[in-house]
Amino acid sequence: MGGESEKWILMVTARTPTNIAVIKYWGKRDETLILPINDSISVTLDPSHLCTTTTVSVSPSFDQDRMWLNGKEISLQGGRFQSCLREIRARAQDVEDKKKGIQIKKEDWQKLHLHIASYNNFPTAAGLASSAAGLACLVFSLAKLMNLKEDNSQLSAIARQGSGSACRSLYGGFVKWVMGKEDNGSDSLAVQLADEKHWDELVIIIAVVSAQQKETSSTSGMRDTVETSALIQHRAKEVVPKRTVQMEDAIQNRDFPSFARLACRDSNQFHAVCLDTYPPIFYMNDTSHRIISCVEKWNRAEGIPQVAYTFDAGPNAVMIARNRKTAALLLQRLLYNFPPQSDTDLDSYIIGDKSILIDAGIKDMKDVEALTPPPEVKDNIPLTQKSKGDVSYFICTRPGGGPVVLSDETQALLDPLTGLPK
Amino acid sequence: MGGESEKWILMVTARTPTNIAVIKYWGKRDETLILPINDSISVTLDPSHLCTTTTVSVSPSFDQDRMWLNGKEISLQGGRFQSCLREIRARAQDVEDKKKGIQIKKEDWQKLHLHIASYNNFPTAAGLASSAAGLACLVFSLAKLMNLKEDNSQLSAIARQGSGSACRSLYGGFVKWVMGKEDNGSDSLAVQLADEKHWDELVIIIAVVSAQQKETSSTSGMRDTVETSALIQHRAKEVVPKRTVQMEDAIQNRDFPSFARLACRDSNQFHAVCLDTYPPIFYMNDTSHRIISCVEKWNRAEGIPQVAYTFDAGPNAVMIARNRKTAALLLQRLLYNFPPQSDTDLDSYIIGDKSILIDAGIKDMKDVEALTPPPEVKDNIPLTQKSKGDVSYFICTRPGGGPVVLSDETQALLDPLTGLPK
Repeated sequence: MGGESEKWILMVTARTPTNIAVIKYWGKRDETLILPINDSISVTLDPSHLCTTTTVSVSPSFDQDRMWLNGKEISLQGGRFQSCLREIRARAQDVEDKKKGIQIKKEDWQKLHLHIASYNNFPTAAGLASSAAGLACLVFSLAKLMNLKEDNSQLSAIARQGSGSACRSLYGGFVKWVMGKEDNGSDSLAVQLADEKHWDELVIIIAVVSAQQKETSSTSGMRDTVETSALIQHRAKEVVPKRTVQMEDAIQNRDFPSFARLACRDSNQFHAVCLDTYPPIFYMNDTSHRIISCVEKWNRAEGIPQVAYTFDAGPNAVMIARNRKTAALLLQRLLYNFPPQSDTDLDSYIIGDKSILIDAGIKDMKDVEALTPPPEVKDNIPLTQKSKGDVSYFICTRPGGGPVVLSDETQALLDPLTGLPK
Repeated sequence: MGGESEKWILMVTARTPTNIAVIKYWGKRDETLILPINDSISVTLDPSHLCTTTTVSVSPSFDQDRMWLNGKEISLQGGRFQSCLREIRARAQDVEDKKKGIQIKKEDWQKLHLHIASYNNFPTAAGLASSAAGLACLVFSLAKLMNLKEDNSQLSAIARQGSGSACRSLYGGFVKWVMGKEDNGSDSLAVQLADEKHWDELVIIIAVVSAQQKETSSTSGMRDTVETSALIQHRAKEVVPKRTVQMEDAIQNRDFPSFARLACRDSNQFHAVCLDTYPPIFYMNDTSHRIISCVEKWNRAEGIPQVAYTFDAGPNAVMIARNRKTAALLLQRLLYNFPPQSDTDLDSYIIGDKSILIDAGIKDMKDVEALTPPPEVKDNIPLTQKSKGDVSYFICTRPGGGPVVLSDETQALLDPLTGLPK
């Protein structure tokens, strides 16, 4: 093992996207292996706007596995981290870096320790699937470091054991998490339905909604639903299988009306089974409801859906517009209904792909204040009655690509000499 | 027909309670006859606090059927009113009032016109089942006027055609609306499970919640649910039949924990299928959610349920406390979390049976401000952060009796000489 001295450090840095489910995962049939009770389908979000970057490193000088998240050291003792580390080490291969004169035999990986640093380019607490991107990135970068032969689909079955929805972040575009049948979970993994270029007209706008109440974690929430809801099994066995097939067709055919109707209905049904849980779980709040009403009213006025919405385990709305033109019209409606607070500047209120703002003809707050009610709204809402501050900010983005290795060493989160966060 | 002159007026005045379902009615199998897709069970509310009073009168001098609701004339042309009037006239009998010298043959009722005046002792628009009490009272008072031989259960099948839940207002105490099997609806009627004395410890507190959004009417809401929800049929066919049996047992045995769990879960499931409707229907709002959290937190802390909650097609909470002592503790919690606005006096904030307020040790606003957080709440909520004005007022009441005829003529809503509203 190793080069001349024992001081060498080998590093890999990778970037992995988040994803948003359009057919929802809710409920496990195996808590430890994280095996779901139904298939799910997601859209991968552009990592330029929402992603996790992770640097993994190995060195004979490291005396324990350590991890830093957003600059702060966190424990790796959790069962989910340990499952992922164990599964990856078991598949590790010989690694040779001739330039650095490093050679690692596959059996060495059991003894070598790791330093891991991870960073989200969006607020961790905002309820934007940070654990999905994080665990996927951990598994992907470790697999590259340890030279695993497994493809992304096989890696997704490892990431799944860290965080269920993480398995869907191993691919870009449109991804299906096949629930699988095996007790050991070997066939419960992600497959790509189509890449991000297949349907590149879509534009995604996320409303990060201010929450007052502390939320139920999705882990305990879905356990409570499986244990107490009288509707969840009917959803998993009768409803979702049909919807999954229909959603795959809608994606293949770029059939936006079907895509939108399925996504909206499945999001609503997921929240319905949360409400049917005892005690009930509320993830959406009045602001979420108002966003839905705004979209539904517009879709109804147009005759066919212009925008789909979907909500995960929190009040944030993820809206998918059929194209850029629709997205600009959506942004106008959102800013009309949910203007920023007086002390918020537009530049921090609309983040991500700001070109949508230009398409919407909005340059500054004066343009926001000048917005007139959309045709489907009968009465002009006085500015004083609008709910300023109910939305923290909006993120404009689009479907995006899967995990990538960042070969530029300046992007590494760990110092190549010390193996500690930069 | 008639006495010496044609100037006579014959009148009946009756009072009918509202009811709150603890196993919910949602969804019709026949829109015209109003036949439900499942059984439902309700508690009748004390008419001293929530009731409809109706005076019906007949006179050969009336040239058309007319009706006044809360003093304002309304149309009787609606199909539902017409169904009730037709069904009752078809069953009318000979009537003789020897004192007044009036004789009406049953065939005369087809030609005689009616004047009807109805009054709710609570706000009609507050979403407190005013149509249930109203239609039940119309049918009950007309049945008395026209000397029908049918018992209250048979009358309930007529009231059902005016407003589904009205059929459950024909009895006091605990009432089951049997869905029935016949296509003509003849067996879809209410039966009394137990009278109001059977379980007289229960105390009911209603939070009338301020609503911002206009609500979906229950008629169109349940139609949309039946047409679009993928869960409603499973609820109606698989879930409710079991719950109905369990709820009947809980009522017979005065088993409060079972009663509370079933009522809460069924209310939540009704709102879940509303959310599963497309487009989704939201009846509860953030205030409703906070009331549920308050009750659930307390119930969990106590180990067994102290209070049940149930919500109809609106944000108002109906809470059922196991006894007076629990009701006083509940009222303290509600006033702690939802104090009145500064300009509201306590006397108009807590209405109905104000003795619960005395039991809770609250005489004035100073006592409300001095309330300390209940033991299950860890952090004291500063008064400035509390949601003043989210609840409009509370009504304290209890299970109550069924319809009664008011023989005291001074309580009539119509002038005995003119047949017009007093």
